Amino acid sequence: MLEAKTSGYEDLAPELQTSGWLNTPQSITLASLRGKVIVLHSFQMLCPGCVQVGIPQTQRIYDEFDPKEVAVIGLHTVFEHHSVMGRDALEVFVREYRLHFPIGIDKYDDQQQKLPLTMRAYQMQGTPTLILIDKAGQLRLHKFGHISDLTLGLSIGTLLSEKIVPTKTPTATQINDANYDKNGCSVRVKNT
Amino acid sequence: MLEAKTSGYEDLAPELQTSGWLNTPQSITLASLRGKVIVLHSFQMLCPGCVQVGIPQTQRIYDEFDPKEVAVIGLHTVFEHHSVMGRDALEVFVREYRLHFPIGIDKYDDQQQKLPLTMRAYQMQGTPTLILIDKAGQLRLHKFGHISDLTLGLSIGTLLSEKIVPTKTPTATQINDANYDKNGCSVRVKNT
Amino acid sequence: MLEAKTSGYEDLAPELQTSGWLNTPQSITLASLRGKVIVLHSFQMLCPGCVQVGIPQTQRIYDEFDPKEVAVIGLHTVFEHHSVMGRDALEVFVREYRLHFPIGIDKYDDQQQKLPLTMRAYQMQGTPTLILIDKAGQLRLHKFGHISDLTLGLSIGTLLSEKIVPTKTPTATQINDANYDKNGCSVRVKNT
Amino acid sequence: MLEAKTSGYEDLAPELQTSGWLNTPQSITLASLRGKVIVLHSFQMLCPGCVQVGIPQTQRIYDEFDPKEVAVIGLHTVFEHHSVMGRDALEVFVREYRLHFPIGIDKYDDQQQKLPLTMRAYQMQGTPTLILIDKAGQLRLHKFGHISDLTLGLSIGTLLSEKIVPTKTPTATQINDANYDKNGCSVRVKNT
Repeated sequence: MLEAKTSGYEDLAPELQTSGWLNTPQSITLASLRGKVIVLHSFQMLCPGCVQVGIPQTQRIYDEFDPKEVAVIGLHTVFEHHSVMGRDALEVFVREYRLHFPIGIDKYDDQQQKLPLTMRAYQMQGTPTLILIDKAGQLRLHKFGHISDLTLGLSIGTLLSEKIVPTKTPTATQINDANYDKNGCSVRVKNT
Repeated sequence: MLEAKTSGYEDLAPELQTSGWLNTPQSITLASLRGKVIVLHSFQMLCPGCVQVGIPQTQRIYDEFDPKEVAVIGLHTVFEHHSVMGRDALEVFVREYRLHFPIGIDKYDDQQQKLPLTMRAYQMQGTPTLILIDKAGQLRLHKFGHISDLTLGLSIGTLLSEKIVPTKTPTATQINDANYDKNGCSVRVKNT
Repeated sequence: MLEAKTSGYEDLAPELQTSGWLNTPQSITLASLRGKVIVLHSFQMLCPGCVQVGIPQTQRIYDEFDPKEVAVIGLHTVFEHHSVMGRDALEVFVREYRLHFPIGIDKYDDQQQKLPLTMRAYQMQGTPTLILIDKAGQLRLHKFGHISDLTLGLSIGTLLSEKIVPTKTPTATQINDANYDKNGCSVRVKNT
Repeated sequence: MLEAKTSGYEDLAPELQTSGWLNTPQSITLASLRGKVIVLHSFQMLCPGCVQVGIPQTQRIYDEFDPKEVAVIGLHTVFEHHSVMGRDALEVFVREYRLHFPIGIDKYDDQQQKLPLTMRAYQMQGTPTLILIDKAGQLRLHKFGHISDLTLGLSIGTLLSEKIVPTKTPTATQINDANYDKNGCSVRVKNT
């Protein structure tokens, strides 16, 4: 559930850093979505917990909620097995699974760093990760692993009800799931 | 989803009219719950759509949401087969299915009328029916049949975000589901 | 899985002892079904493990397999809460859940004994219980609790393949499930 | 269900033609499995119907049935998007999904033909395809799309019950599913 505590995050949720997009004619920035609640679903196409739970949930949000109020964005944050989860593979995956929401490809620097840039900026622990950003652009929920439809719906409903009042006060909170089940793909386990 | 249109309902959601309660030491009134969002789930213990979908959803709400903010109430609205869905049968059902939320028994007058009193007051079409009542006591959602966890969660989140401002303006809305699937138990089909 | 060990059972599976039938114009005896593989599903209408798992599985068998080869029989073995699971309640249950396979009511003697007669004869531990009887009338599988569709299908396929050779050798086996999960209704827990 | 009709197939099920194997130290031939019932599951790692239904079912068979009697083999029959479903991608998929049954890679000739060799020999229509081969090496069931656990279990049980009698009589049958649902990947739709 949403909390309004401060955290180590910046005032605004970090902007997306992508190397490409699918299902949208042009790149999407968080800044361009001010006034909407943003559901950002970070996944990898070969992560079972994403394919079986996270992606279907994201598609349901995209199908059920009003796009004028709730912006749904997928983010392909590949942090392992890069050679088999490139853009060409992702395109096949998206077409075969009939996904229709816009999906950005998290920017990855082969030479410099282990994790893709947006993943790093958000300090994501692995995939699937669900992030909620409020109308003012603040990070309000950060969940590694699964979250129930009921609780996710309630969180979105709460953010939708907020008046848009730009604020300097950090209000982000991070829900870590230490006991996240085996179907998730954890950075800690795999990249160390 | 919630709507704020007027309807034929009274300003306040009709008070419960019960002949008994389970899972609570004393009777519950809607009036006593002002300030909370109320989830009222109307069911019959031998209605498949209730047993398979509605009741598990109600139990999930009861398990996941804060009881100080969201009051979950079951209502046994028997409108057919009264002889086999009496209080004794309901008690066995509730124990075997390990239901823990409070359940009222909708008052039924053998001699005078066809439908139990609360069911009549709400003009319910059958079971399962889900009703949301806001903090001020207004009826805000009335759904015969199933509603997704996402949309229900969003509706509850929206109501939780509202300031408690008593109002005279009717804000109720009724979502009827003309195409409700066969697992539901409809008054129209069975009681005419 | 089927085993061919001997057990304390008689050569032939005990005959059904019923006080009535639903979904069939006349009583059914095991003896009348010689030459068919018999799937006997023992349940109680208010047992969650029966309603959620056992009965849907039985209905699938009834829908998928050839009735000329596989006879599907439900048996309502009420061993508790008799007053709310009588024939009238069962009739409502069967109609509401749209069950179509024949269902016998296990004979119960209010005065003399605790358990219904067929249940006693088979030494059932509770509900749901699944019993397979081969073409020659021998008890071949006795399972308290759940059994997967794959393993059940394989067992039925094995029995279907057997030639009908009446034999005096007891071949029954009993698969007890000591760790049967909480949704089942156990005689030991409830009737002692 | 199994049928014993003749078909255009050869007496023996065509031998596998593979370019590599996973989850087994050495290549597997059908010939080496005589005496066992063989469950051959043909899939593509980016085919939703395979990932969501076919592969979990195959894994269940592998988990529940005795490997001394039932040999479970996966076959990666890629007929489209070869560049993103190569051996390296398959290895990641198999590891992430924790599949443990042996998986052969259907041999594909880039220059000469459209479909991989084993897929051609079996005239498969797409993925997922399930094939049952009896103890004598005859093709006995060929199913494009999904098959229920009950019916599949029954078919395997029937084949397990057969005596091993080498025969010259073709007994294969092919169950085509003209109305196979959209999650399957059909050759006709995609490769023409």
